[in-house]
Order: sequence, then C-alpha cells, then structure tokens
Amino acid sequence: MGDPNFSGSAPLSLHWSTDSSIAVIGGLGEMGRLFANFFKDFGFPVGIADLETPLTPEQAIREADIVIFAVPLHQAAETIRRLVPQTRPGQLLMDLTSLKSAPVREMLESPASVVGLHPMFGGRITTFTGQTLAACPVRISPADWEWLRGLFTSRGISVKECAPEEHDRMMSIIQVLFHLTTMLIGRAIRDLGIDIVETMEYTSPSYRIEMNLVGRIFAQNPGLYAAITQMNPHSGEIFSALKEGLEAYEKFYNAGSLDGFMKDFELSARHLGDFCKSAYRESSELLDFSVQLAHKNNKNGNQEKTSNG
Amino acid sequence: MGDPNFSGSAPLSLHWSTDSSIAVIGGLGEMGRLFANFFKDFGFPVGIADLETPLTPEQAIREADIVIFAVPLHQAAETIRRLVPQTRPGQLLMDLTSLKSAPVREMLESPASVVGLHPMFGGRITTFTGQTLAACPVRISPADWEWLRGLFTSRGISVKECAPEEHDRMMSIIQVLFHLTTMLIGRAIRDLGIDIVETMEYTSPSYRIEMNLVGRIFAQNPGLYAAITQMNPHSGEIFSALKEGLEAYEKFYNAGSLDGFMKDFELSARHLGDFCKSAYRESSELLDFSVQLAHKNNKNGNQEKTSNG
Repeated sequence: MGDPNFSGSAPLSLHWSTDSSIAVIGGLGEMGRLFANFFKDFGFPVGIADLETPLTPEQAIREADIVIFAVPLHQAAETIRRLVPQTRPGQLLMDLTSLKSAPVREMLESPASVVGLHPMFGGRITTFTGQTLAACPVRISPADWEWLRGLFTSRGISVKECAPEEHDRMMSIIQVLFHLTTMLIGRAIRDLGIDIVETMEYTSPSYRIEMNLVGRIFAQNPGLYAAITQMNPHSGEIFSALKEGLEAYEKFYNAGSLDGFMKDFELSARHLGDFCKSAYRESSELLDFSVQLAHKNNKNGNQEKTSNG
Repeated sequence: MGDPNFSGSAPLSLHWSTDSSIAVIGGLGEMGRLFANFFKDFGFPVGIADLETPLTPEQAIREADIVIFAVPLHQAAETIRRLVPQTRPGQLLMDLTSLKSAPVREMLESPASVVGLHPMFGGRITTFTGQTLAACPVRISPADWEWLRGLFTSRGISVKECAPEEHDRMMSIIQVLFHLTTMLIGRAIRDLGIDIVETMEYTSPSYRIEMNLVGRIFAQNPGLYAAITQMNPHSGEIFSALKEGLEAYEKFYNAGSLDGFMKDFELSARHLGDFCKSAYRESSELLDFSVQLAHKNNKNGNQEKTSNG
C-alpha cells in the first residue's frame, strides 16, 4: 500500500487546531451527532447540516475548515460526489462510512486533505474507551495525521490504520459474512415458523449469546445492513463461498457422510489455528458472564416473558 | 404430547434411592465422568464401563439399578439397541445424547423406566449452577421423576421438560441452524484465505464475541458437530431454509436491490418481535463486558499474538 500517510497531490504543510471550524454533513443522524459531540468536547466550533437544518451542506462546507460526511452508506459516494466541488485546498475531509474504497475515492477528487474513517461501533455507545476506529489517512501530512489520531486516542479509542481496499476486504468477513449468516438465521427461523421465545427455554449460554446477537441485528436499521452486505466490493466472493460450503455440507448430509463433514471441519479448524484455543478460553469467560446475566434478566422478566410478534 | 411423565407399559411403583447402584456406559468420556461424579456426590455407588475398563457394559448393566448411556451421539442408538436385551424391569435407563427421538425410542424397547436427558452444557463446566438440562421423562412414575428431578435442581440445574420430538425440533434451530452457519463461516474464512488474527485487529465488540464463538466450536470435537448437524430429524428442513435464503439474498444482490433485502429483513424482524428489543439490551451488557475482557486478554497477550496455522 506504499506510504499510507501521504500520497497523491496533497497539500504540503497544512495545520488544523481546535479553533478550526467543523461541518458535519448528516449531523442529525446517530453517528453524526456522536462525532459532532466528540469534536465539540475539544472546543471545535461545529456546524451541522442535515435534511431539516437551515444550514445547507453546500453552505456548511464553504464555511468549514474540516468537513465530516456522516451520511447513510448507500448514499455516501453519491453525496460526496455531489458536494466535492464545494471543497477547497486547505480543508480536511473525513467520512464515517462502513466501507472505505468508494467514499475515499470520491473524496480524493477534491484538492483537500482526506482521511476515511470507519467507527467499529454504533452511534449509541456510552463511552469511547476501548472502541476501535478504522482509519485510512490517504492524503494528509504525517504531522497532521499524528495530531488528528491523537484526538481519538486521547479518548481511549484504538485507531487501526489501513488502506481502503484492505479495509473493505476485512469487512467482507467482519460484516458481510457475519451479517449475511445472521440474516439467514433470522430468515430460517421465520421460514420454519419457530417461536424464538420457546427455543430460549432450552438456553445454553452460547445459544443465548448467539441468539442475543441475532436479535441485536434485527433491532437495528435494515438499510444499513442491506448496504453493508451488498455494497462491499467482495460481497460476490462471500456469496460464492457460502453457496459452495452449503452445497458441500448438503452433499455430505445426503450421502450420510459424517466422515466428509468431519474432514471439512478439521481443515477449517487447522486454518483458524491457535486462534481456536484463545477463543475457547475467552468465550468460556463470556459464557460464565452470560449465565449470570441471564439469571439477572430472567428474574427481572426481561427476556422470557416478552411475547413473540 | 399427552402425559409426558407416564406412558407405555411402565412399571407401577418403583423407587430408587441414593443406595441404588448406577452404571455409566461410556463413563470415561467427558460427559460420562461429569455425570458419574454428579451422582457419586450424592453417595450413589457408581460403576463405569468404557472401552478400556475391565467392567463390560453388559456386566455393568446386569449389576446396576440405574443405567446411564453416555456414548457419542453417532453411536448412541446402535449401542443402546445392542444393550437393551441386558436390561430388566425395575431398572431406570437414562441417556445423555444431544438428540432425543432415536435414543429414547431404543430405550423404550426395554421393560425398564426411561428418562432421556440432554445436558445443554459441555463436559468441562466447573459448576452446575445456572446450567440447563433438557429432560424427556417418557416412562417413569410421577413420584420417581420428582425425586430424580430434585437431584438436578438441588445442584442449581434448571430442568426443561419436553417430549423427544419437540426437543429435536428445537435443537434443529439451537444446534443445527447455528452450528451449520458457524461451520459455513469457518469454511468461508479458510476458503478465502483470510488470516483471522488480522481481522481481529478491527475488532468491534460484537465481532469479537461472534468470532470467539466460532473459534470455540472449532476447538471442539468434529464428530460431535458432524453428528449433531446431520442426525437431527429436521436437518433437511434447515438445509432447505438456508439454501432458499441464500438464493433469495443472492438474487437481491445480483439485481442491486437494497429494497428487496430490506423488506426481507423487516419480515424477519417482525417474526422475532419483541425478542429483538430485549436481545438488544442484554447484548449491550455483553458487549460492554467483552470490551473489558478484550482489554484484559490483549494485555496478557492472550489473543492477538497467537499465530495463524
């Protein structure tokens, strides 16, 4: 990926400070608000432009030193493309989108400095401490990037630097593969007419955790998950891998071949390697915690007594 | 399901006590040992028969008042069928298999009392408190079942009574659906040549939990997971539902239809109903805990420094 900190026709010695004015485009959304408040806390003057604000995006961008695009993933590239003509040299552009190749490519059309961001957390978190932020500092001087990164790390955020293409490849696993299978699980439960509350009565701690994570996805924004799983440049590969796997397993099943299945299992276990051992240890701690949590929440009638719609 | 506590040609007024002798067939395996110790703790005399023991299964069964089959799932029905001729009226037969229809059907061929058990926990647990035990008391007098169930609940185990067919249907979700998708995830990661340790650097708390649970499965016995996913009477339905779902999603993907995907997502969310809200709340507590855990384990070099095989 070459030097990720400085590439292309970048401005040479720009500097921003907490006096620099910030425009958050889409600043009324959950993530936009979170980052507007993040920067306000440092003293930055922050202007917000959204569909219902008197301040238009164009105006906000013209008046700002730093521009943050906080728009929904499926509109991000298009919105940035439309607004880039309003940007100018000396500005710093950032976005908060779950994919990085396309939005960063659009931002690079501007003469401004460019850093793509992907917060690996939702807009409803209560603390930044311990959260991860993926960052693509594609066009910014090393000193400026150090300053910007310092703002994040000073709040306990762990910053993972990466190239946009590398980021999207990793997200094809972290997001596409896991969200697709989660959605397949939800769909199968619906398809088979299973009452999820009834299954929870057989709770093993790991099933309870898994099912909680499934429910968590379906408690959230359908548009985000549709875009995340379909707009990744590697989504096609994930679909192929899942299809191939399912066909292989179905073949074993139809042939009654426990052996074929076991061999395939062992190949995957070998690929995952030592990770499985540390995962076993760490998940055991999680399971213990989940047993306590289930006990507490069942006593409060939090889970089992809710009805199934 | 009629009266689950008493059915068929059951003995009328049998009683066992902590003086009753127990034979654990397969008593050297993890689960067999766990239950042997469970009953020893109450003072029961426990004999163990396994492949390497001087005591044969036939001899153990002839000498025992209570027989517990603790054999691997893929051999359970066959083993029980072979040994049932050694059983007699007045005995109590139990098994510890992850599926219930087939093993219970084989045990019912005996003139003895029959209770099918499925511990919803692994053989390596450190406490019974808060664990769930699914139980099919298919042929046992109400008083005897109350006594037996009392042994389990006195140790903090939550006993979920169910009919064998109902149990296996629930397990087609809890085990087949979740384990199959987990194995598909592991297979896809291997297929795409992804280094899992590298993806963990982008850790969001929910990805870390999900990936820990994937690793946990692959740290365990391939034979168990092969049998669990392939021998359930409803496995075929799960395969069909997954295939149908994957085809639907691929169609949306190929057509670039975020809308179709979102509508499908909303249908599943509606089916899961209020569960999603409580799942969101409980998983948020889990995520917070996972962040702390990750911090602790990363500091100890538990996770990120392991190599990928």
